[in-house]
Amino acid sequence: VHHLLSQRSREQRGSRIRELLKLTERPDMLSLAGGLPAADRFPSEIITDAFERAMLHRGPTGPQALQYAPTEGVGMLRERLAAEADCSVDSTLITTGSQQGLDLLARVLCDPGDVVITEDPSYLGALQAFRFAGARVVGVPGDSDGLDTEALATLLAGGARPKFVYVCSNFGNPTGATLSSARRRHVLDLAERYGFLVVEDDPYGALRFAGQAPQSMFAPGRPVVRLRSASKVLAPGLRVGWMTGPATIVTAAGLAKQATDLHTSSLNQLIVMEAFADPRFADHVTSNAAVYAERAGALSAALRRSFGDRVEFTEPQGGMFIWARLLSIDTSALLESALDGGVAFVPGSAFAVEDESDHTDRLRLSFATLTPTLLQAAAERLARAAAVTLV
Amino acid sequence: VHHLLSQRSREQRGSRIRELLKLTERPDMLSLAGGLPAADRFPSEIITDAFERAMLHRGPTGPQALQYAPTEGVGMLRERLAAEADCSVDSTLITTGSQQGLDLLARVLCDPGDVVITEDPSYLGALQAFRFAGARVVGVPGDSDGLDTEALATLLAGGARPKFVYVCSNFGNPTGATLSSARRRHVLDLAERYGFLVVEDDPYGALRFAGQAPQSMFAPGRPVVRLRSASKVLAPGLRVGWMTGPATIVTAAGLAKQATDLHTSSLNQLIVMEAFADPRFADHVTSNAAVYAERAGALSAALRRSFGDRVEFTEPQGGMFIWARLLSIDTSALLESALDGGVAFVPGSAFAVEDESDHTDRLRLSFATLTPTLLQAAAERLARAAAVTLV
Repeated sequence: VHHLLSQRSREQRGSRIRELLKLTERPDMLSLAGGLPAADRFPSEIITDAFERAMLHRGPTGPQALQYAPTEGVGMLRERLAAEADCSVDSTLITTGSQQGLDLLARVLCDPGDVVITEDPSYLGALQAFRFAGARVVGVPGDSDGLDTEALATLLAGGARPKFVYVCSNFGNPTGATLSSARRRHVLDLAERYGFLVVEDDPYGALRFAGQAPQSMFAPGRPVVRLRSASKVLAPGLRVGWMTGPATIVTAAGLAKQATDLHTSSLNQLIVMEAFADPRFADHVTSNAAVYAERAGALSAALRRSFGDRVEFTEPQGGMFIWARLLSIDTSALLESALDGGVAFVPGSAFAVEDESDHTDRLRLSFATLTPTLLQAAAERLARAAAVTLV
Repeated sequence: VHHLLSQRSREQRGSRIRELLKLTERPDMLSLAGGLPAADRFPSEIITDAFERAMLHRGPTGPQALQYAPTEGVGMLRERLAAEADCSVDSTLITTGSQQGLDLLARVLCDPGDVVITEDPSYLGALQAFRFAGARVVGVPGDSDGLDTEALATLLAGGARPKFVYVCSNFGNPTGATLSSARRRHVLDLAERYGFLVVEDDPYGALRFAGQAPQSMFAPGRPVVRLRSASKVLAPGLRVGWMTGPATIVTAAGLAKQATDLHTSSLNQLIVMEAFADPRFADHVTSNAAVYAERAGALSAALRRSFGDRVEFTEPQGGMFIWARLLSIDTSALLESALDGGVAFVPGSAFAVEDESDHTDRLRLSFATLTPTLLQAAAERLARAAAVTLV
């Protein structure tokens, strides 16, 4: 039956990270590889109480949590999210995680061959979604202030005409960088001038523990779609995200969603709605950020202790990742001895947009899932593996 | 921003049924229009108990219900479903409802312009998914034994080369027909001979209350993908379905799913797993079917009482729908006076694959959501509306 597969399906490749994660299930492995939030921080009580309240909602066709729901989302949750974003309800769509938002946008915006611009390196799930829709993805370099908008301007002046520019605005994956306020304004100016859409992916914004958050690029009337998610503040297992953007685009995405999964789980939408309304939720987010701060600090200190001046990275102010550079080390080669030594990470080249020989001295390290003591042990294992790799 | 929409997005049309359903929320409306299962039959206790047990599962990365899960599905549920279907685990994929199965299959099988064959009339969500993937959908007539496989054979002999043939095998939507055993064998023969895949959509099979179920077309080694769902036996609000099929196809669909929503809600997968394992589940399915039987009988009798020999339909043996013909009535015209008279249904032309002027004397009537008394009242309202329309 292989001959029946479509061209685009034959071109699909699995995520290297996902393959790698299978190796990290060894019980002795200390994994800095995952993009998983801290499981010991999931608010099980808030979610259990939210479930009980979710089951009480009755609509005209029975218990709302169990019945089919409108494609665009459960009315009360959609209204709440629209009010928070200060936009209209028809500018708001609930999605099955923000990954679905990326997939829907790619499909309603891109015909095969259309150009999409992202920072290079970039989130693999976004690259997969854009390419599966037939888009041609073009990378632009970035730094600790996020995507380099001067490089973007040069590309546009040179004739590039993207359907959209994809930006992970706060604590991006893999770089951990936050797009600066000045660059946000610059991207918006370029979007108005060249007529493209800005897709602002923001799953990590609530995980800020230091510094000041720049304003979101989204506002009604602007050519911006913002994607958000309950995955990092409640639990990814719920698969609830949402988008806000121009009603024309959001309506088209909703129409595409009908054919995709009819609607996002009604039960989980009501759980998220009830959890957001729980008076304990704000405290949960605050204490969550404090735990991430402690872990980020522990991994930063451990890396400096273990690697000295052979490591370079920007001290994180939030999110889940450190995007470290190990001077004159090929991190793909390092991975093998690291796994042997009981520590996992994702080599930088895995996130390359343009060329897999880019970012070869980089590695993405997640500080989210391990305690400070284990983060210290992981850094030591990594340093031992690096010493072997250097020989 | 309208100019940014892709060609395929601009060609997307909303489902007429969904627009119609918005009208049926009037409190005095008796709706035979929905495709909703009986809300008074949702097993809330089984689901609540399943939730409690679901929250207890622990994996290497924390509470399984809340954490990210493998794209292919939570291991234990996937193994259970594979064992039930007597196939391997890598032939099994959990989907976000079986609607997602349709979308994934369309995308991994069809390049733009590829042909897909379905019965005409057909399930609208399938048509939407196939067309959004760029497929050209060709309709084949059917009757009370399902898709007419002789007509299919003629089409194939004439040169049609579909990527797949889509069949709703048991109590199809909208016709309520079940594909006969002889025709199942015929479709399989044709699939082997012409090298296409059979997509067997089976969301309603468990709602049988009379007659004998023909065997599923799916078996390991055959070019068949079968789609199933928890929506009709537990609750659609969970959005949990699954596919079994050739590993090559299922693996490709899993890869596409990575980019689509990462995975189906871990919480809901565990709820479904625990509910299926609940000793009360079998009784629930049995008593469910008995309720549907009573309602089907009530609507059948009411239609005959109200319309006499001006109505034709096949007595249902399961599922949710009666696909009735009203002699010399245009059911699209009837709809307006029916809504005025407080009863809703879906006119047959809404399900047309080839030509919207087909099936104009048909209407899809759901007996699932109303009690026998209300079904009787609905049939009477319908007859009054038909009397007005005839004048």
